[in-house]
Amino acid sequence: MPEALSILLIDDNAIRASIIEAGLREAGHTAVHIVTDIDEVASQIGMIAPDVVIIDLENPNRDVLEHFFALSRIIERPIAMFVDKSDPAEIEAAVDAGVSAYVVDGLRKDRVKPILDMAIVRFRAFSRLRKELEAARSELQGRKVIDKAKSILMQSRGLSEDEAYSLLRTTAMNQNRKILDIAQALITASDLLGP
Amino acid sequence: MPEALSILLIDDNAIRASIIEAGLREAGHTAVHIVTDIDEVASQIGMIAPDVVIIDLENPNRDVLEHFFALSRIIERPIAMFVDKSDPAEIEAAVDAGVSAYVVDGLRKDRVKPILDMAIVRFRAFSRLRKELEAARSELQGRKVIDKAKSILMQSRGLSEDEAYSLLRTTAMNQNRKILDIAQALITASDLLGP
Repeated sequence: MPEALSILLIDDNAIRASIIEAGLREAGHTAVHIVTDIDEVASQIGMIAPDVVIIDLENPNRDVLEHFFALSRIIERPIAMFVDKSDPAEIEAAVDAGVSAYVVDGLRKDRVKPILDMAIVRFRAFSRLRKELEAARSELQGRKVIDKAKSILMQSRGLSEDEAYSLLRTTAMNQNRKILDIAQALITASDLLGP
Repeated sequence: MPEALSILLIDDNAIRASIIEAGLREAGHTAVHIVTDIDEVASQIGMIAPDVVIIDLENPNRDVLEHFFALSRIIERPIAMFVDKSDPAEIEAAVDAGVSAYVVDGLRKDRVKPILDMAIVRFRAFSRLRKELEAARSELQGRKVIDKAKSILMQSRGLSEDEAYSLLRTTAMNQNRKILDIAQALITASDLLGP
């Protein structure tokens, strides 16, 4: 795990912030930026581009929680969140929003490091799985488009499947475009021109 | 979240087990089975078929950890694990093994319920994503097989794509088998018979 992490800590309670900061310092993390004003969070994330975000909320109301869950969906970073109370619905909302560690009533200096480590590892595992899913779905979608284009060429020009694919590939190379783009263009044209 | 969960608690420390049990009882969970002997764990899981597994290890050595990580890969249940110490490599191994909550130095009666809730929610979210990935990959694989079979029929019998697909579907219906099986059989036969 890299030690030179840039960490954004969001906390409006100075005592709790100092506990977390001490835990981070003892774990070797010195690049810690603290934000106390919720309204500044978005701009600070833009400026600092932190590797990890820690959000300490003590006893947030529903609106504040929702605000940070919405943030979590957008920033695509490991997020560790400390709250002192929570109900099952909030826990579910936190996981849905991609919060990597949601720690209920567990803030203590010594626990900051393992929780941070865990948030990073869990974030990576989930991201990896999500990327694999995106890749599989996009390959499936691409295959459907290319197959449709091949079948249009096979029927309209009496080509074999291999010939149809070769024609798509040659056209793509000649035009310096992707096969998928050529296939999509062909389908669009075919839809416009009718059978 | 259902309250009538069947919970298997693995713990060889009576004091710590009683803390966890008290936390569970206060949260309304009464169906708690405690196992103290590691060698009995597998058979107990088979008999009890628990909804959730809680593993409390205090300060496990590497072998014991590996043992439970291996168990975690197999049982496909939400697992919450309590340890008192951990290093980043162990945290990573826990996440890799699908441990839904890996709590370092955080055992306290009041925290048992939110940790259990979190483990269940996280397990579901991860399982859902993994099932979606399996479905996308299997659809992709199935599509490749059916497309290959269609193309064999189109070339060898001069059919259009639609006709080739209809032939596969009709054959599948007549034989009361899946289109994918028919397509696979055709590809195998075609490989055997040559071009």
